[in-house]
Amino acid sequence: MKDNVMKSINIVKYDGDSFRHVQDQVANEYALTIYVNDNEFATMVCTPTYMEDLVTGFLASEGVIRLPREIESLSIDEDRGFAYVQLVDKKPVANQLQSKRFIGSCCGKSRQFYFQSDVKNAKTILSKSTIGAEECIKLMEAMQDCSDDFHSTGGLHNAALCTSDELLLSRSDIGRHNALDKIYGHCLRNKIALGDKVIAFSGRISSEVLLKVSKIGAGIILSKSAPTTLALELAHDLGITAVGFIRGSRLNVYTHPERIIL
Amino acid sequence: MKDNVMKSINIVKYDGDSFRHVQDQVANEYALTIYVNDNEFATMVCTPTYMEDLVTGFLASEGVIRLPREIESLSIDEDRGFAYVQLVDKKPVANQLQSKRFIGSCCGKSRQFYFQSDVKNAKTILSKSTIGAEECIKLMEAMQDCSDDFHSTGGLHNAALCTSDELLLSRSDIGRHNALDKIYGHCLRNKIALGDKVIAFSGRISSEVLLKVSKIGAGIILSKSAPTTLALELAHDLGITAVGFIRGSRLNVYTHPERIIL
Repeated sequence: MKDNVMKSINIVKYDGDSFRHVQDQVANEYALTIYVNDNEFATMVCTPTYMEDLVTGFLASEGVIRLPREIESLSIDEDRGFAYVQLVDKKPVANQLQSKRFIGSCCGKSRQFYFQSDVKNAKTILSKSTIGAEECIKLMEAMQDCSDDFHSTGGLHNAALCTSDELLLSRSDIGRHNALDKIYGHCLRNKIALGDKVIAFSGRISSEVLLKVSKIGAGIILSKSAPTTLALELAHDLGITAVGFIRGSRLNVYTHPERIIL
Repeated sequence: MKDNVMKSINIVKYDGDSFRHVQDQVANEYALTIYVNDNEFATMVCTPTYMEDLVTGFLASEGVIRLPREIESLSIDEDRGFAYVQLVDKKPVANQLQSKRFIGSCCGKSRQFYFQSDVKNAKTILSKSTIGAEECIKLMEAMQDCSDDFHSTGGLHNAALCTSDELLLSRSDIGRHNALDKIYGHCLRNKIALGDKVIAFSGRISSEVLLKVSKIGAGIILSKSAPTTLALELAHDLGITAVGFIRGSRLNVYTHPERIIL
């Protein structure tokens, strides 16, 4: 699998003094085109690992399926970069990218959903589960440790599925959404309940990441990076606890702080 | 303009010991929907600054226009997040997102272009201009200094347009592509030649970023982060010098090292 994640290449290194020719590891970037019911649906670039999970999570996230049993068959042509999905239901599936911007007819809340598919698929999280601040810090460290293999490329995002005191699963990808979709797909295919889970993430909490977490159904997102305003408005409305800048012994709780305890 | 870039919010800070309620700055994320000739063309999320440059650069990058004079009018409804573009040519413009994946019928080079619009717009750079390794480091530092205002949010990418010894222009955005499009749009609207220019960039060099640099027409991309395999294959083929991991007094030259001198 490591060959799929990174490749060795020749580079020229400057060390403040002179040039040297050395070998270095670079993150592999791979174009994957997904066909659904024989129609081209989307092309993504990704790290080519756990591709069945990735495709399943992506289709669920886009609202094409709700459960894996709606997929009749899924095959990957790894050499050429194609995924072929046949759904049980053969009706045409609208290209995800044709979704029109959604502007609510009244004020406030719905303004923040800018695509119709998000309105359909985003879930409000009602979970009452809590997590200690120290556990947030430990889970973030555990995710970093899991991804040691990939540190050499410097080009990957990590996401992990956790309980309030244990890391269950960690996935890497050059695309931050993909790392989350690999986790979502794994959970769907293995019937793992998500309402009481925590997602740890290496990247920024943007609106797209927040919406993905909401679709996955987790109530808490932990990040070592910053959030954006739109992500926080969505987190507030959708009942998600957003924790950012988890670095050293510190962290910031941005929304729904009732789930973070001492 | 600062109000557009970041917003002040109330957060809960944990410092390893206790919780405190404090004010913090968060990067503003703003949804902008672009209409071209009265048809919905694309929705992006961005930092709402230099929006005329952003829209112009984006349309050029997507191959909708080649020159600003092809735009008859461009107006921004900042409150609602809409940009209305009328082109001189009123023919319908295909939604950028409908572009089909492009797979070359033969081997090699064209395999790496995964969208038809990229095949049309990516330029091979023939520039013979060079830059010293020390200048690469200084330009990266100059870009960081320019973006001091934005460091407090931690959520922005920076891009700068440079000559081989001077930073000309720096732009920030929550979206890495947008920071580059703001520079591209500025250059187009102000008739700044790009063949001899250098782009400095805070984010990773992915295939999408590399293609954007190629469309802009710059021969050298400097980054403090990592590249990906696909980006380097494209850089090799398109004649672009990719320099990454510019940190302290070090850097890595990945492609076309003939442009980087001692």
